[in-house]
Amino acid sequence: MLNAWIPHSQYQKLKIVFLKHIPRIAFDQKPKMGSLENERKTTGWAARDPSGILSPYTYSLRNTGPEDVFIKVICCGICHTDIHQAKSDLGMSNYPMVPGHEVVGEVVEVGSGVNKFTAGDIVGVGYVVGCCKNCSPCNTDREQYCAKKIWTFNDVYTDGKPTQGGFSGSMVVDQKFVVKIPDELAPEQAAPLLCAGVTVYSPLNHFGLKESGLRGAILGLGGVGHMGVKMAKAMGHHVTVISSTDKKKTEALDHLGADEYLVSSDTEAMQKAAESLDYIIDTVPAFHPLEPYLSLLRIDGKLILTGVINTPLQFLTPTVMLGRKSIAGTLVGSMKEQEEMLAFCKEKNLTSMVEVVKMDYINTAMERLEKNDVRYRFVVDVAGSKIDDQ
Amino acid sequence: MLNAWIPHSQYQKLKIVFLKHIPRIAFDQKPKMGSLENERKTTGWAARDPSGILSPYTYSLRNTGPEDVFIKVICCGICHTDIHQAKSDLGMSNYPMVPGHEVVGEVVEVGSGVNKFTAGDIVGVGYVVGCCKNCSPCNTDREQYCAKKIWTFNDVYTDGKPTQGGFSGSMVVDQKFVVKIPDELAPEQAAPLLCAGVTVYSPLNHFGLKESGLRGAILGLGGVGHMGVKMAKAMGHHVTVISSTDKKKTEALDHLGADEYLVSSDTEAMQKAAESLDYIIDTVPAFHPLEPYLSLLRIDGKLILTGVINTPLQFLTPTVMLGRKSIAGTLVGSMKEQEEMLAFCKEKNLTSMVEVVKMDYINTAMERLEKNDVRYRFVVDVAGSKIDDQ
Repeated sequence: MLNAWIPHSQYQKLKIVFLKHIPRIAFDQKPKMGSLENERKTTGWAARDPSGILSPYTYSLRNTGPEDVFIKVICCGICHTDIHQAKSDLGMSNYPMVPGHEVVGEVVEVGSGVNKFTAGDIVGVGYVVGCCKNCSPCNTDREQYCAKKIWTFNDVYTDGKPTQGGFSGSMVVDQKFVVKIPDELAPEQAAPLLCAGVTVYSPLNHFGLKESGLRGAILGLGGVGHMGVKMAKAMGHHVTVISSTDKKKTEALDHLGADEYLVSSDTEAMQKAAESLDYIIDTVPAFHPLEPYLSLLRIDGKLILTGVINTPLQFLTPTVMLGRKSIAGTLVGSMKEQEEMLAFCKEKNLTSMVEVVKMDYINTAMERLEKNDVRYRFVVDVAGSKIDDQ
Repeated sequence: MLNAWIPHSQYQKLKIVFLKHIPRIAFDQKPKMGSLENERKTTGWAARDPSGILSPYTYSLRNTGPEDVFIKVICCGICHTDIHQAKSDLGMSNYPMVPGHEVVGEVVEVGSGVNKFTAGDIVGVGYVVGCCKNCSPCNTDREQYCAKKIWTFNDVYTDGKPTQGGFSGSMVVDQKFVVKIPDELAPEQAAPLLCAGVTVYSPLNHFGLKESGLRGAILGLGGVGHMGVKMAKAMGHHVTVISSTDKKKTEALDHLGADEYLVSSDTEAMQKAAESLDYIIDTVPAFHPLEPYLSLLRIDGKLILTGVINTPLQFLTPTVMLGRKSIAGTLVGSMKEQEEMLAFCKEKNLTSMVEVVKMDYINTAMERLEKNDVRYRFVVDVAGSKIDDQ
């Protein structure tokens, strides 16, 4: 379905992003004597096929280069994208694949060119670990859109080896993509900020929606959605949660502090809320009509899409023209925004709501996440699972 | 088809805009003696039914109120929307209907509260003649999006009478919606600026796309499209015309001064142009896929829709997410933008390309316009047609 709707040029790009082919090296084989014996090993939990079931997998890490930071993972959040990739929902994934891109860890070693970090620092890694550092997006703090960006896992690094994510004992990451976690933030609460948090912060920042007093809505109350409510409330916005059922009403209003709760099938309530919002952050990762939500926007309002959906969305041109409304898409955030967002969370005492689990629970956690049965983010206690000792 | 895709709340708004019901007063009947004898008469060319065929029609104008400007029409451009409305393509139109919303005329009389204009001034009127003057859009120079805006024709004025457009001898218009035409601009060249011109200028202004050096494209080379090329060139942009065929290539490059011409079915050329544009102004008033055009946009690029289309448009979320791209809609422009745009056209010696016709040619002109057989805008020489003498 995805392919049918994408012109060749765009398809090529998607292919690069989602379908990148990694040569099928037999990673499980023992390394040849001599060539790899100095490389460090780590153990992660990897998917081996589109069942998406993760199991222990030991692999080599590159040596710490001049710009690299060697990180012992403390914990790592589980995001829907980890499941999509593990199950190859978006095309051909490459296995073995260690997901995980909301990583908090402790710096163990730094390269000779690293001056921002020292051993013992608590740091974070998000969904991107590489970029060309030389193009217009890279030169303007928009490196998450660099054509040569490298995803944290299921991608190929500059050395030709597959990238592996944070459900693992250790990682080696270019310092550009490492961010200091403020002391005030507990690792397990900081982890979801590194993808879910910045996914919400970045569009609010980029589209000029940080000022106090705005009226916003979060469509869909999952990992990203719950961060959206907290982030927008901390900015001083009036926040409405929009959901297809009233199941999460109490949680949204009482636990997360949302101001209003709107059930999208309640025609009367939707009509009453017409043209009342400056923005909607749409976190729903499945097909849904856009008109009901566009109708909620004020003049110059913005519908911001954060979910990869493999069937086309639809809208009528008058629904945007009559109020100069915009439909925009956004993808995580820049490293500058990561830093700003963490400072903002520290300043506002903003935390995420998480359920901490051990690594051997990860397959159950992913099953539950698929059913939206988590309030609101699973975080794997990687260090406490002692997987490198297995 | 329109109705099926619009939720109730939005539908209500569209209904107000497109389907507004005017009580069926028998305008053709002679006025009762006494009550209307002091009202002024004018003759316009009106559609009487959805055939959209126009013929002479005499009706009353309101007396010049304190805020009003009484205008003798000199000329009036023909826009696609005139045809849509005359033929009731967008729902129930009300007849008799005098279209025309690119009006240039001479001030004959002004109300006691009018200080911006005096008799003899050459002035323009666009697609809006009324608003509430008291809401957030009205207070922030976005009155074209006021919920109570009044269209120049096929709408109901504050006195309960139908508005009638510029294919007529005279009009009475609130001074807020009257703009001075700079002496340097000939009336027949100024006329298309008042809808087609501002339709292009407004989004370039609003979305921060006026600076020199940008790369833009105009999709569709009709009345709005040709103004788009001229306006964007005058701003110092690199301008590509995108069309479904190569029929207009010479005209676009040689007559209008476009820098490049791209045929949308030429896959190789489209791929070569991928991610090269800061914006596309999409003037196509019929269904078309959006992905090929979204793929041409750079990071943070904008696809700006100006055409009312009564079937839904589609796109895949990754096509916007991967480059933080936006799809936006826009509707004519504010009066502030009308003024700025006319000053800009004067400064840049920017003119429109028109074919001037007499009123008795209007039905043929509309037929030809429907077949895109005009370079690029018909302008009716209303004063020269002496319709008020008929």
